[in-house]
Amino acid sequence: LLAKAHIAVSIGDLNGIGFEIALASHEEVKKLCEPVYFISKKMAIKCAELLGKSLPDDFETVNIFDGFDVEPGVLSAKAGLASYVSFSMAVGSVESGSADAVVTLPISKEAWMKAGLEFVGHTDVLKKHFKKDAIMTLGCEEMMVALFTDHIPLAKVAGSFKKKRLVEFLKLLKTSSGLKKAVVLGLNPHAGDGGALGNEDKIIKEAIDETNGFFGTQIYEGPAVPDAVFNPLTRNKHNWFVAMYHDQGLIPLKALHFEESINVTFGLPIVRTSVDHGTAFDIAYKVANPSTLSYLNAIRYATKLLSANGL
Amino acid sequence: LLAKAHIAVSIGDLNGIGFEIALASHEEVKKLCEPVYFISKKMAIKCAELLGKSLPDDFETVNIFDGFDVEPGVLSAKAGLASYVSFSMAVGSVESGSADAVVTLPISKEAWMKAGLEFVGHTDVLKKHFKKDAIMTLGCEEMMVALFTDHIPLAKVAGSFKKKRLVEFLKLLKTSSGLKKAVVLGLNPHAGDGGALGNEDKIIKEAIDETNGFFGTQIYEGPAVPDAVFNPLTRNKHNWFVAMYHDQGLIPLKALHFEESINVTFGLPIVRTSVDHGTAFDIAYKVANPSTLSYLNAIRYATKLLSANGL
Repeated sequence: LLAKAHIAVSIGDLNGIGFEIALASHEEVKKLCEPVYFISKKMAIKCAELLGKSLPDDFETVNIFDGFDVEPGVLSAKAGLASYVSFSMAVGSVESGSADAVVTLPISKEAWMKAGLEFVGHTDVLKKHFKKDAIMTLGCEEMMVALFTDHIPLAKVAGSFKKKRLVEFLKLLKTSSGLKKAVVLGLNPHAGDGGALGNEDKIIKEAIDETNGFFGTQIYEGPAVPDAVFNPLTRNKHNWFVAMYHDQGLIPLKALHFEESINVTFGLPIVRTSVDHGTAFDIAYKVANPSTLSYLNAIRYATKLLSANGL
Repeated sequence: LLAKAHIAVSIGDLNGIGFEIALASHEEVKKLCEPVYFISKKMAIKCAELLGKSLPDDFETVNIFDGFDVEPGVLSAKAGLASYVSFSMAVGSVESGSADAVVTLPISKEAWMKAGLEFVGHTDVLKKHFKKDAIMTLGCEEMMVALFTDHIPLAKVAGSFKKKRLVEFLKLLKTSSGLKKAVVLGLNPHAGDGGALGNEDKIIKEAIDETNGFFGTQIYEGPAVPDAVFNPLTRNKHNWFVAMYHDQGLIPLKALHFEESINVTFGLPIVRTSVDHGTAFDIAYKVANPSTLSYLNAIRYATKLLSANGL
């Protein structure tokens, strides 16, 4: 009998939808792993009360900052700070070996800004903490999307195009995710249309060729025409897509695979997965049955990555 | 009994899939309008022979440049030039009053480049010919997408953001299309996330407010978070979307409504609709039954716009 993985659950912004998803999924999650929730017992009881529920006895919590009131749906600096503390401690518990992987519930980037935090999201924190070019990947079994650039203004995307950087990205993605084949999207309309609509797609082609040469096999193909590759006639030929920027990859993913998708960070020394939705302030503490599919898939994928790594 | 509209059909690149779509749809199209095909009789007979079919007696053609051989699937300067001539004459026939609207089959932008033509597509020709900021719109009944910027490199998109230009665009789109409500997408990831990921989304908000003020009613809403607005929980709240750039609008459109979508140019003194697919050189003259849905919808939409205009 194998021991279950210990998963550190970063509880997210307590004014948002994270806690109720964790509570609603607890029984199911217990079948998959041993969860530890990075929220204080006092706060967990309060949140459960707000939901008209009681906290299960085996809902394992930790000692953590809880000096604030939960205000459902409110953007608040204190709740933002608390969600950052929960995340930091959850990551720390994996680094120290007390947990095997971290799974995150949603934080509010605006609440982090309000709290004076300079990070634009979980992945950004991880990149800076581990000093690694961590790769933000979202998706599900049919469609995983890795983002070459992620939380940057669109104006800065084209300026990020250096062949060397893309080659390093493609190598790291292959080695850290274990993908077998992937299609790389072009940057410009019609992948540049032979140069008529931009030249970055030629750099992408060179980077693909160089990376395939390095591995000695045709792992990557492309650059694919961005608005064509997700059409129903061609998208099923691939299950890994490399997008050049945030919305290029996430618009089709959320159009096609909304509820089941998750967020995975590759290229780190730890395993980290996440839900791929936001805090949903508008429905927090209001909806009887929030969707738990993304969270459960995040837990499942984390345990799968741990198994693949022999943990 | 109303007279049927006369539709000038620009036949597209004859090495591509356009002619066979026109031929396969001819009987159906005759029920909707009186089509005139901008191809010479000689060339039409040749193309039909290549498909193992004969030309119907009522397949109305025109005298037009045909001094070249059809080479299925081949990118050729001569075929590119011929497709440009077909398009120009079809547009001319509407300007002169011999036809009521133009419907276009696909050309190859690369073939146009090879032929030394400086236009990046049909819409670009129309903008220059009529000296109008024509609006490229693609879609179907459930989802129409108007593009604020279209065939330009991604690097130039953010630089195109001037409030005045966007206000003029939104006004022209409203008056020329007759739309009642539309959602305008943000430019940056998360629509800028309160400024953390770019500031253009604030300009978009100002432009929406100014345009709504001009019309005295809430026609436009937004800026919407681009990767959220097309998810299955929210997309059905809208059937008109204003995208800030080509792939932002066309990736979700082709993911969700591939075969039925069409291309419409608003803001012109003439009615013009088009298929929204390309020349499909790889399957031209090879597939027994190419999809005619986009072409038939383009014909239908043209006749609908003509009726709305009282023609």
